[in-house]
Amino acid sequence: MNVIVDLCVVPMGVGVSVGKYVAECQNVLREAGLEHQLHAYGTNIEGDWDEVFAAIKLCHERVHAMGAPRITTSIKVGTRTDRPQSMQDKINSVADQKNS
Amino acid sequence: MNVIVDLCVVPMGVGVSVGKYVAECQNVLREAGLEHQLHAYGTNIEGDWDEVFAAIKLCHERVHAMGAPRITTSIKVGTRTDRPQSMQDKINSVADQKNS
Amino acid sequence: MNVIVDLCVVPMGVGVSVGKYVAECQNVLREAGLEHQLHAYGTNIEGDWDEVFAAIKLCHERVHAMGAPRITTSIKVGTRTDRPQSMQDKINSVADQKNS
Amino acid sequence: MNVIVDLCVVPMGVGVSVGKYVAECQNVLREAGLEHQLHAYGTNIEGDWDEVFAAIKLCHERVHAMGAPRITTSIKVGTRTDRPQSMQDKINSVADQKNS
Repeated sequence: MNVIVDLCVVPMGVGVSVGKYVAECQNVLREAGLEHQLHAYGTNIEGDWDEVFAAIKLCHERVHAMGAPRITTSIKVGTRTDRPQSMQDKINSVADQKNS
Repeated sequence: MNVIVDLCVVPMGVGVSVGKYVAECQNVLREAGLEHQLHAYGTNIEGDWDEVFAAIKLCHERVHAMGAPRITTSIKVGTRTDRPQSMQDKINSVADQKNS
Repeated sequence: MNVIVDLCVVPMGVGVSVGKYVAECQNVLREAGLEHQLHAYGTNIEGDWDEVFAAIKLCHERVHAMGAPRITTSIKVGTRTDRPQSMQDKINSVADQKNS
Repeated sequence: MNVIVDLCVVPMGVGVSVGKYVAECQNVLREAGLEHQLHAYGTNIEGDWDEVFAAIKLCHERVHAMGAPRITTSIKVGTRTDRPQSMQDKINSVADQKNS
């Protein structure tokens, strides 16, 4: 089952600057070979359900290992059975409306 | 790794009434033996990371099998390494503040 | 426009224990006279759009005033024009499916 | 109070293709003069709290007016008092870690 995910990992108990933890999650996604795109409030990821969620679990493990005692993460997950759809398709479906 | 999760499954393309799909997700959680509590905008779940996310995947599979061509799901996931915390502990930590 | 909201306020830069900040948000909601229900990963709120969002803004102001330098909040907002629906109606719509 | 918001509006009861509703929300944001950036699972917005939330309310009103009987929207809201931070700053804070 293919998924498009939006991931936002928030480490708690490590102060206000969390860029290095988010960067480590980007490393996890890259090492997993998952297509992903950082934005200002999270990261879009595309791939097989099991591979994507294995990577998200590894993000939690790595961020805890870096010293964060608590993590709260928001995830949005989209699946569809009617037709395949990539992250770029989703963006195009909005842009197409604007141009029509 | 123990998690507390908030899950909100939204089937799309099946009209405005989605109660039966949410009820099926409750069945999935019950069959999985996971502690869970329905609220007005989702369901709190507590358990082992792998068991909870296996159940969430099964929710998607079941809701698609019921005829929903598209699903968008919101998940919040909390983990902590400093101390164990149950769903009830989280509620109590707020109530304790009120009473102090 | 009536809304049902799920609110989860996460103060950052104040350590791992955030119960007192969440409790202050409960105070804000109570003082605003808004129907609300705490759960293990947020608070359900029901009311007029403007009143609910004014309260959410006040939550941010109060939590900053308590010393939190950064806040990340998750909100789910539901509106519908087909029929009125309360928080309890939503829970009942799932329970009714189970019993049918 | 300045906010960075991530907005994901999901119309229900209108079938699986929701691009035209999302495009209308982009129109609302543009008309409001708010800096915003579409991504594959939502839209990042930056601006004054009141202006941003007025635009989000208008998105709901417009999408209902287009015929959607029900809407469920996910919002993430970030505020901070320690220092100003733009959407681009957030992305840079992660990129800087990678390069360090």
